[in-house]
Amino acid sequence: MKNWLPQYLPYIRRRPLSSRTLALSPPTVLALGFAGLIVLGALLLLLPAATTAPLNLLQALFTATSAVTVTGLVVVDTGTHFTLFGQLVIAALIQAGGLGFMTFAVVAVISLGAKIGLTQQKIAQEAMSQTSLAQVGQIAKAVLLYSVVIELAGILLLTLTWYRELGLATASWHAVFYTISAFNNAGFALSSDSLMPYAGNIAVTMIISSLFIIGGIGFTVLIDLKKQQRWRLLSVNTRIVLLSTLILNVIAFLLLWILEANNPATLANLSVKDQALAAWFQAVTPRTAGFNTLDYSQMTDASNVLTLLLMFIGGGSLSTASGIKLGTFVILIMATYAFLRRRDDVTLLRRTIPNAQVLKALALTFVSMALVFLAIFVLTALEKAPFLDIAFEAVSALSTVGLSRGLTGNLSVPGQCVIIFLMIAGRLGPLTLAYFLATPKQRKTRYADTKIQVG
Amino acid sequence: MKNWLPQYLPYIRRRPLSSRTLALSPPTVLALGFAGLIVLGALLLLLPAATTAPLNLLQALFTATSAVTVTGLVVVDTGTHFTLFGQLVIAALIQAGGLGFMTFAVVAVISLGAKIGLTQQKIAQEAMSQTSLAQVGQIAKAVLLYSVVIELAGILLLTLTWYRELGLATASWHAVFYTISAFNNAGFALSSDSLMPYAGNIAVTMIISSLFIIGGIGFTVLIDLKKQQRWRLLSVNTRIVLLSTLILNVIAFLLLWILEANNPATLANLSVKDQALAAWFQAVTPRTAGFNTLDYSQMTDASNVLTLLLMFIGGGSLSTASGIKLGTFVILIMATYAFLRRRDDVTLLRRTIPNAQVLKALALTFVSMALVFLAIFVLTALEKAPFLDIAFEAVSALSTVGLSRGLTGNLSVPGQCVIIFLMIAGRLGPLTLAYFLATPKQRKTRYADTKIQVG
Ligand SMILES: [K+]
Ligand SMILES: [K+]
Repeated sequence: MKNWLPQYLPYIRRRPLSSRTLALSPPTVLALGFAGLIVLGALLLLLPAATTAPLNLLQALFTATSAVTVTGLVVVDTGTHFTLFGQLVIAALIQAGGLGFMTFAVVAVISLGAKIGLTQQKIAQEAMSQTSLAQVGQIAKAVLLYSVVIELAGILLLTLTWYRELGLATASWHAVFYTISAFNNAGFALSSDSLMPYAGNIAVTMIISSLFIIGGIGFTVLIDLKKQQRWRLLSVNTRIVLLSTLILNVIAFLLLWILEANNPATLANLSVKDQALAAWFQAVTPRTAGFNTLDYSQMTDASNVLTLLLMFIGGGSLSTASGIKLGTFVILIMATYAFLRRRDDVTLLRRTIPNAQVLKALALTFVSMALVFLAIFVLTALEKAPFLDIAFEAVSALSTVGLSRGLTGNLSVPGQCVIIFLMIAGRLGPLTLAYFLATPKQRKTRYADTKIQVG
Repeated sequence: MKNWLPQYLPYIRRRPLSSRTLALSPPTVLALGFAGLIVLGALLLLLPAATTAPLNLLQALFTATSAVTVTGLVVVDTGTHFTLFGQLVIAALIQAGGLGFMTFAVVAVISLGAKIGLTQQKIAQEAMSQTSLAQVGQIAKAVLLYSVVIELAGILLLTLTWYRELGLATASWHAVFYTISAFNNAGFALSSDSLMPYAGNIAVTMIISSLFIIGGIGFTVLIDLKKQQRWRLLSVNTRIVLLSTLILNVIAFLLLWILEANNPATLANLSVKDQALAAWFQAVTPRTAGFNTLDYSQMTDASNVLTLLLMFIGGGSLSTASGIKLGTFVILIMATYAFLRRRDDVTLLRRTIPNAQVLKALALTFVSMALVFLAIFVLTALEKAPFLDIAFEAVSALSTVGLSRGLTGNLSVPGQCVIIFLMIAGRLGPLTLAYFLATPKQRKTRYADTKIQVG
């Protein structure tokens, strides 16, 4: 576990491991865990008690993968095709996949033997300065505690919102399901039109979007926010994640409102308040919640292209969100700015980002783009669908967003396999890649340098 | 001019400049030269003698920009809308833009005061070891000499091919125009359907594709090829460019043939020989010639997606082609491979590529992708056209390819301006960016390092 993801936490100090190291590499453990969960989930969903109509093996695997990877793409309608038991299985898979992944990632980072020393080195010093199994357990507990508290708040608020409309029993079950689905950025809904009926509902829009924004912002940011009282005491990483979340959401909100304002199929016929709510929800959901209150296939192409970018970016590191992550995106922007200003160091908020970090961000982005491209190429060869629908579906799957322009239900068998692969790669890929980048193997012979023409 | 593009030539040794340096930076000189050529060209095309029908200012600017940047996208038909004089102006603009750019780039590299020491340090040692104005002139002469010899061969062969069909006068004029357009990777044609009538013509297919492949492979590769007799004596850069050209062309050839074999609108009804010729031509033209013998809007979406990638990659550095360039693409592939193998040094052909080089390749690619994305977003907001057509047009313009699915003629006025901007950015951008990357300005204060979470 040595050298495991040092870039995940600022200013890590390495110490000798005081406990035994695992024989398997963390990415292998993670992949095995996910595979096990998916197979178990698929088997449970195949039980007659889980469904109201026949479900084939591929559909079960697709649904389980979508739940465990917290994607939310569905080949059958969650609300009608599954019984309450089936929906419970899906909720459990989401919770295990989303929370489990976040916990694993945080624990893996901590078990480096590192002290989480954010800029002011005050956070969690005692709890995290050693790596005994007991300590690992403590960290995992902290992650779970945070999550449970936030989820309980969500369940309470949503039950209060829905109990008049649905009655207490249904309201509380919906509240549980939607809270789990939202906090874990899964985007599974109990109706086939996601949250479209609530496009103008302030409570639902705000509670659900708050849940997935908090879930998608990352554990280290949350813990930093709780411990520090003032903005200037927050770590650079925390400030960057918060600032970029705010800026991206506001820009997306304004752009989507402008782009859809005259679209009669979406915003044109809504009141200003409802327009604002719908624009807000569609602005924040692509990174990477996956609920929607508008129909993406009815939105303008420009809104869809903007959504493609937002989906590709995703949320914070060590969170329930996927994508290349906010930190990666910010580094790319600042590196580009530095290049264009002919500076050889990349800076932000009066800090220098080491070149190795920039290289990692670029590598991660390039691999993601290569994968998206390859997937789009294969899907265009397999599916009869407009290019935009295919590109949207591929990016949505790789970033485990779950938004769709309607292609998911019409996918061919090989097409479904491609999407399953993308969901798994999208959820496990960045962490695995970061591990590879963080733990290089030295090769034995070193060749002489050469120069290849660039540009 | 110090530090000008050291990565353009392998193993550059820096020497003090023996002659005066320019007061303007090379990118500025290049931009001013291009702007001057475009304005001059547009004015000439606006002369009544140049056209057979009215031409507005934007159309003239678009045509001149397309010619000078050797793109080949057209808003009016070159063969019918322009008189012989107008076509001569266009050919002159292509020659000046294509050859001028290549000469400038090579001279700029040489005027560093560098000896072109390819691996064996044998090439052009005497001619290029100093940087007096006389030497610069000599280098420019060498570039021009190469180009003229190749173009004369092209003109001769095409005249022989066409004189029975068209008569000597027309055949020789067509030969001149198509040779200039092909060698400079411009893709301008004298008929609105490009070279579609010659889809099954071996001579035309092979002569034209040879011309643009040679033109797009780059001057340093050509000079290395001429001086060295054996494969192993060629520089790593030369071998990489040749190998990647061969591999990409063969893969694209096979994929396109497979993807179009059953498409009745393209290959299905052709003989095997004609299928091979058409697949070959469409495989090699996207990087970045721009002629076509099949209709891209009739080809499968998968073929179009493959073409998007090929267009984005482009040809060799210091050539008449654009795109991110073969060297950049190969570095990206090898860097990804190294990351996935958890190696911290990127190697190919038993040589190590320095990390700084990798970073430049990634930066250049990222900036290109950001520009393509921004352009697609703006164009989807401006134009009523399928997403694939818009993406195709944007990439084609930025890589100065000139292929189109038919959108060019239907572009709105702001849409035409976007495409004009992309063509100029695509031609000048990579060289300018490479200059920025190669000549960093040190900032005065250096901030402390920080770590931002990635992945
Ligand atoms: K999701
Ligand atoms: K071209």
